[in-house]
Amino acid sequence: MPPVTPVNSIQSSAARLASRRPALCFRVYPGGATSSYSLSANLKDKPLVKKERVVILGSGWAGYTFARSLDRTKFEPVVISPRSYFVFTPLLASTAVGTLEFRAVLEPIRRLPGVDFYQGWADDVDFARKKIHIEANATDDLVKMAVIPGPSGPGAAKLRGVKGEEFSLSYDKLVIACGAYSQTFGIDGVREHASFLRDIGEARRIRLRVLSLFEQCAHREDPTAPADSSAGRLTDDDKRTLLHFAIVGGGPTGIEFAAELNDLIYEDLARIYPGLMQFVKITVYDIAPKVLPMFDQALAKYAMDTFARQGIQVKTEHHLERVRLADGYLGAEHGALRIKVKECGDEEVGAGLVVWSTGLMQNPLVEKLAAKEFALSGTKEVTHLEKDPKTGGLVTDQYLRARTNGDKGGLLEDVFVIGDCSVMENERSLPKTAQVASQQASSLAKRLNSGDIAAKPFRFRNWGTLTYLGSWKAIHQSKTELKGWIAWIVWRGAYLTKSMSVRNKIMVPVYWATCFLFGRDINRF
Amino acid sequence: MPPVTPVNSIQSSAARLASRRPALCFRVYPGGATSSYSLSANLKDKPLVKKERVVILGSGWAGYTFARSLDRTKFEPVVISPRSYFVFTPLLASTAVGTLEFRAVLEPIRRLPGVDFYQGWADDVDFARKKIHIEANATDDLVKMAVIPGPSGPGAAKLRGVKGEEFSLSYDKLVIACGAYSQTFGIDGVREHASFLRDIGEARRIRLRVLSLFEQCAHREDPTAPADSSAGRLTDDDKRTLLHFAIVGGGPTGIEFAAELNDLIYEDLARIYPGLMQFVKITVYDIAPKVLPMFDQALAKYAMDTFARQGIQVKTEHHLERVRLADGYLGAEHGALRIKVKECGDEEVGAGLVVWSTGLMQNPLVEKLAAKEFALSGTKEVTHLEKDPKTGGLVTDQYLRARTNGDKGGLLEDVFVIGDCSVMENERSLPKTAQVASQQASSLAKRLNSGDIAAKPFRFRNWGTLTYLGSWKAIHQSKTELKGWIAWIVWRGAYLTKSMSVRNKIMVPVYWATCFLFGRDINRF
Repeated sequence: MPPVTPVNSIQSSAARLASRRPALCFRVYPGGATSSYSLSANLKDKPLVKKERVVILGSGWAGYTFARSLDRTKFEPVVISPRSYFVFTPLLASTAVGTLEFRAVLEPIRRLPGVDFYQGWADDVDFARKKIHIEANATDDLVKMAVIPGPSGPGAAKLRGVKGEEFSLSYDKLVIACGAYSQTFGIDGVREHASFLRDIGEARRIRLRVLSLFEQCAHREDPTAPADSSAGRLTDDDKRTLLHFAIVGGGPTGIEFAAELNDLIYEDLARIYPGLMQFVKITVYDIAPKVLPMFDQALAKYAMDTFARQGIQVKTEHHLERVRLADGYLGAEHGALRIKVKECGDEEVGAGLVVWSTGLMQNPLVEKLAAKEFALSGTKEVTHLEKDPKTGGLVTDQYLRARTNGDKGGLLEDVFVIGDCSVMENERSLPKTAQVASQQASSLAKRLNSGDIAAKPFRFRNWGTLTYLGSWKAIHQSKTELKGWIAWIVWRGAYLTKSMSVRNKIMVPVYWATCFLFGRDINRF
Repeated sequence: MPPVTPVNSIQSSAARLASRRPALCFRVYPGGATSSYSLSANLKDKPLVKKERVVILGSGWAGYTFARSLDRTKFEPVVISPRSYFVFTPLLASTAVGTLEFRAVLEPIRRLPGVDFYQGWADDVDFARKKIHIEANATDDLVKMAVIPGPSGPGAAKLRGVKGEEFSLSYDKLVIACGAYSQTFGIDGVREHASFLRDIGEARRIRLRVLSLFEQCAHREDPTAPADSSAGRLTDDDKRTLLHFAIVGGGPTGIEFAAELNDLIYEDLARIYPGLMQFVKITVYDIAPKVLPMFDQALAKYAMDTFARQGIQVKTEHHLERVRLADGYLGAEHGALRIKVKECGDEEVGAGLVVWSTGLMQNPLVEKLAAKEFALSGTKEVTHLEKDPKTGGLVTDQYLRARTNGDKGGLLEDVFVIGDCSVMENERSLPKTAQVASQQASSLAKRLNSGDIAAKPFRFRNWGTLTYLGSWKAIHQSKTELKGWIAWIVWRGAYLTKSMSVRNKIMVPVYWATCFLFGRDINRF
């Protein structure tokens, strides 16, 4: 037996790693232990590099797509984000009910070869000295804020001034891709009680909540016990409250979640809790006269008829005024909510879950940067970033470079803004969607890679919109229109895109198959 | 277009369900919408049944195996448990590092056809009237207690007297299979700060903690910043503390977790955080002179040599005396711990994570039932269940029927005890393992199904013990001994057993394959 010495140095680790795997094994990642990304994870030890450092703020569609598309031989990409993974949002609603599992729609930033990552909040940017001030957030405490936090709840510590470790990072080029927050329109109780479907933590909580509500309502009495025994038993009306699922927002996100929830209930929960089906109701509320505004009349009507056949109520031109916890044991023990809807009169509507999927507001960083005045080095002229008056986003030229307000309408040559937080001056009405963000990111990366930023302006190509309606049906709108089975196949096929790793391109169909064969997993933990 | 009416009655649901699926679809579950289990989920509506109701307390190896083996045409099985799923514990350590995903080792009780389920705690049993008193727990608040809770933390509400809905259930036969809790031996700080690897919630928290520790230690400074900037930066000693993983208990659970953790670190995290490998240490502590006592000398030595080559330290004859949170920012912000080990002198050892995998203590229900005095109907003789003086478990005869203390050493004919909470009077030294619990459950179900309880006494057949050692190696001990590659294949093959659903029999190899090809998922949410 050879002498055994504990070994724990990097070299030994690398050697051990190499020796550990039998020769036939391989990993489907470019690069091995000596690739640039493994060295770059420790900047301090890295030899002096001549590549320009491109710092990317954000790990969403814009930030992630840009980071993976940038040429790592020419640039040194560094991603700053409080969230260490990218979320493939079109499939988020599927994970919130268990059609897919959460990890199948996540891509960790750290797995991108050649890309550095710092988990934290970019608090401030010094455009003159080209430095970013960052507050670290590796403990993940504050990462799942979809809205500006209130005095309590996740993120509240941040507001109270408890800070993570702070440090600065210098940049050669900066790409602002920090996205937007959900807008609650200041409606009472939404921030505290509603669920938002924008991130994976929220999807997980929604899934647990839905399944738990059914378990809580499951009939429990001993049929031989006297009818008046056992205080606190749930009445039929209680069950109708707890099993009412209210979705606010009739755009694709809200409609898809309603559709997925309906599938979960009627494909899986109906078999397990058949006695509860009589109490279940799904309602979609929207203030507009019609839902799915980006689809034309015939498709939107098809969607509404499909929902009606499935028993999903759609209440257009309905305004939510308030959300609060129900009184008594129903609120305290079971978390039931009461919604005040203007068009439903004074009586409140009970619900077990309210999902809020409408409205965007600017990231506080964007507001802070837009308000910041600075003088670029070498000039005395004080300037600031240009902000779009309507949405509050940062204005860019047609090459995605940040505009500054000045007499001559200047540019920050090394600062780019893409995604939901940006507004192109020549196309101010571009929708805030994943498609736009992703195309802007790819386009910008391509221009930087070829070194000719102003060679081609950015043009958005609309590949159409897809929305799943439940029951194996979907609608697709672009130059052509599709509905029903065919649209469903296009919908499922479209999601196997290059924004997804090989692993998830395999796992997503695997989960679809197991969902079909065995039903959705209903475990709660 | 046919008129659309919202439909939400059971009949319509069933009809919709039937019409929804194209004719070629099928579900790999026995029974459809009219099978006995879908009706039995709502006891109150069920027609009067002549089958004996067999109530099972517990959803672990004993309870779950028994429930799925009992003949549903002869009996009406009802499972009572605070936990709505069964955990396939041999693979739990794999989920705690991401080799497998959590749901692949869970089986929901509600998916067992023909079996009723009530989520709650059995608080008390009236043996005379054959009734069980249950406190409902559908909100899952208290389900993940591995130890008796302290004044705060999960389960504390229960201790403070906040109760869920209460009700009674009568039984014809009772099977007590409520398992055991983790024993902390009263050591200061273990309950508050250590992690236990007994349930899936714990596995998830351990996984998040390990990954988060690496992210927290990841090097973050700007190499161009002055060395004394940024207060609160982690020093090298801080990183050695945070990346020290202490495992207490050298039995198969502790050893397997150490092995899996080592795989995660050196197969996945070494590529992502190569600069941190120099700080990583794994230590296994045990009070006994040797670990893996159920294996013979040669195999145990092979295990120790394998660990030594991997850099895992094994400290036998070491006693933990106290665990506490570290002082300063290291404890407050990063959750670092300090362990006092008797044999290491006065200086405490720092650790980022302490996993406690040793010792069992009786479930408080068992203690309560053993102390209870009652007189069976038709007799005046007061009796009580017999308790084993050494372990505190409930004593049974060789047919698994509960013994009572009385002059003649009586029996409760309709009460059975199986699994960790039972002690057979003729084989008091049977180990408390999944194998024993599972065999007792199958044997008891078989005897009840054939209606001849006393036909054959229970005999345990030892199929041997398997322990994974990391790096594709394992050891297997039964009549033969295996080690290395072959044992690894047996180890992996053995787990595709009949205690696992078809779905998980597919998903477990799928996850092993994706782990091999793509590495473990490192996302934290």
